[in-house]
Amino acid sequence: MPQSIYKPGLHIVSTFSAPVELLRDAVYCRELFDGLIGELGLVKVGEVYHSFPQGGYTAIVALTESHVSIHTWPEFGMATFDVFLSSFMNDNTEKVRAFFDATVAGFRATVTNRQEIMR
Amino acid sequence: MPQSIYKPGLHIVSTFSAPVELLRDAVYCRELFDGLIGELGLVKVGEVYHSFPQGGYTAIVALTESHVSIHTWPEFGMATFDVFLSSFMNDNTEKVRAFFDATVAGFRATVTNRQEIMR
Repeated sequence: MPQSIYKPGLHIVSTFSAPVELLRDAVYCRELFDGLIGELGLVKVGEVYHSFPQGGYTAIVALTESHVSIHTWPEFGMATFDVFLSSFMNDNTEKVRAFFDATVAGFRATVTNRQEIMR
Repeated sequence: MPQSIYKPGLHIVSTFSAPVELLRDAVYCRELFDGLIGELGLVKVGEVYHSFPQGGYTAIVALTESHVSIHTWPEFGMATFDVFLSSFMNDNTEKVRAFFDATVAGFRATVTNRQEIMR
């Protein structure tokens, strides 16, 4: 039964540093994201994985629950990453944090910036 | 010549209300976004447009400069919208604000939340 009012979802917006080899490996990122989507019971409705000449890549995954995006910069040893899940049918707040924490662990990352926005 | 240090880009994260007919019209959104991408000299590298059974849609456009995303909720008369452009080769800060302002105008929207994040 749909909610009668909009329930804001959590959006985590971050920047992290990570090993260069992972920031160049879009296949690794895809396996990581696909695994997390499955484990957390999310539903993918489309995606873009695009590699750049300098070795970085952009991945954007559209979910029924909203989206995940990462832009990697191996030349700077860092990435911008965000995950946003609406809470339309269920409160997905903890799933956002779980996705974020698992991505940080998967990238062996050091988070340099992390903001939580309810929207 | 690439920069030797990472230059943060501007990410605007927002929520707005808008007329229901525009929140249901993914074709309109695509024309609006494609027009803005052209006018601002941005480069699209992939996109997802996905319509949901209840009439809303998700659009995510991957750019060489980062991404644009919108999730519409016609049943609530609102959308979550964000635009993020890195400033890798050029300072794209004003292009982010121009994209945001033109999207708000194009959707005849009332912005209920808007945050600027440098990342």
